[in-house]
Amino acid sequence: MEQSRPLDALNHSRNKTVLVELKNNKQYIGKLIAFDIHINTVLDDTEERVDGTLKRKLGTVFIRGDTITIICPQ
Amino acid sequence: MEQSRPLDALNHSRNKTVLVELKNNKQYIGKLIAFDIHINTVLDDTEERVDGTLKRKLGTVFIRGDTITIICPQ
Amino acid sequence: MEQSRPLDALNHSRNKTVLVELKNNKQYIGKLIAFDIHINTVLDDTEERVDGTLKRKLGTVFIRGDTITIICPQ
Amino acid sequence: MEQSRPLDALNHSRNKTVLVELKNNKQYIGKLIAFDIHINTVLDDTEERVDGTLKRKLGTVFIRGDTITIICPQ
Amino acid sequence: MEQSRPLDALNHSRNKTVLVELKNNKQYIGKLIAFDIHINTVLDDTEERVDGTLKRKLGTVFIRGDTITIICPQ
Amino acid sequence: MEQSRPLDALNHSRNKTVLVELKNNKQYIGKLIAFDIHINTVLDDTEERVDGTLKRKLGTVFIRGDTITIICPQ
Amino acid sequence: MEQSRPLDALNHSRNKTVLVELKNNKQYIGKLIAFDIHINTVLDDTEERVDGTLKRKLGTVFIRGDTITIICPQ
Repeated sequence: MEQSRPLDALNHSRNKTVLVELKNNKQYIGKLIAFDIHINTVLDDTEERVDGTLKRKLGTVFIRGDTITIICPQ
Repeated sequence: MEQSRPLDALNHSRNKTVLVELKNNKQYIGKLIAFDIHINTVLDDTEERVDGTLKRKLGTVFIRGDTITIICPQ
Repeated sequence: MEQSRPLDALNHSRNKTVLVELKNNKQYIGKLIAFDIHINTVLDDTEERVDGTLKRKLGTVFIRGDTITIICPQ
Repeated sequence: MEQSRPLDALNHSRNKTVLVELKNNKQYIGKLIAFDIHINTVLDDTEERVDGTLKRKLGTVFIRGDTITIICPQ
Repeated sequence: MEQSRPLDALNHSRNKTVLVELKNNKQYIGKLIAFDIHINTVLDDTEERVDGTLKRKLGTVFIRGDTITIICPQ
Repeated sequence: MEQSRPLDALNHSRNKTVLVELKNNKQYIGKLIAFDIHINTVLDDTEERVDGTLKRKLGTVFIRGDTITIICPQ
Repeated sequence: MEQSRPLDALNHSRNKTVLVELKNNKQYIGKLIAFDIHINTVLDDTEERVDGTLKRKLGTVFIRGDTITIICPQ
């Protein structure tokens, strides 16, 4: 059995909605457009939430990878 | 005697339930699907807990390696 | 379908207005002049804001990449 | 006289009990099974202690190296 | 059109007065003498300010790049 | 005149007593057995002190380099 | 005109008195004996000061580069 790699899981979520959480506790929910090996990530149609509350609608967002804790497909 | 390496221990836990603890004190318990040399990790059927209390059911979670402190097979 | 990369998204914003947010919660809004793979970024005609309030007009600003959390085209 | 290297000292502790202390002040005491150049470390029969008090029995634990401050043979 | 790079902007400020802000909120204002790819920076005729208030006159200052948040030509 | 390098200074302290101070303010005083380019360090006959007060006698201690601020020969 | 590099400035201070400030706000004043590309630094005849007050006379001190914010020739 071939072993899967973590970036494969992200690849399955391309063009789908994901939740990205940052070290500063902010959450970004949007369509996963792009990511790289540093986990730099681009979302589209993005909502920013803090403690589950909508704070801003942001459209396209580039997120620097080193600030990310988790990414969850929705 | 051949010496084991840390990633061998993680490899033995593939497709088994593990506990992943983060620097922000969150805990993720789920099936270990994938990891890489940065310890970027993917869990499936994941529960998020804080101080042992269930907070969220998250399904698949990608965890950025640099935010992890420990991983324990359950 | 060719897969887009995160820096492509930044490239589309060259010479356009972007919002850059830092780990220290400061916001810089200006015209995106340059960036590199470390996400070191240069803005022109820049305003610094904290909690949405204008603090300083800064002209050209070089921002060290490792201090950035997100970049949003405006 | 040949000069010893830091990882030699860890190597002498393989299969022996060590104390691993983390930046978050948690202590892990267990049998040293494996380590690598990043000081990623695997312990077996592990006890977690905080301020010297037993918190959890954890069995096998993978500890990410960058979270470690010191390792002491017992 | 050739695309500019972030270090080009710093290069235009050589021998001119710049403001360098650090993660610890200190500000250094002086003539930009040198910088490298890590953004290690040397200023001359430097004033240190905190919250805009002059604290020390420092002459030549070497600033380690990883402590810098922004650099602004004055 | 040949220029000395920082690790030369540490090399002169091999098998001599040194004080190692960490980012968490703990002090380790012991015989310098080994170090490497990451400043991973091994001490022998080690005492741990906090604010100058003896806390623990630790024997051999492996200290991860990135947690160290200064090393002083005694 | 040949452009100077940041380490050239440090080189001019070899065997002269410098002030080294750390991220933990400690100051070390002593004769600059050695440094490397990581800005690991060795001082001789060193005084440690906090808020300008002499705390300890330390003789030779090895300072790990990543803990340094600024270095000033005196």
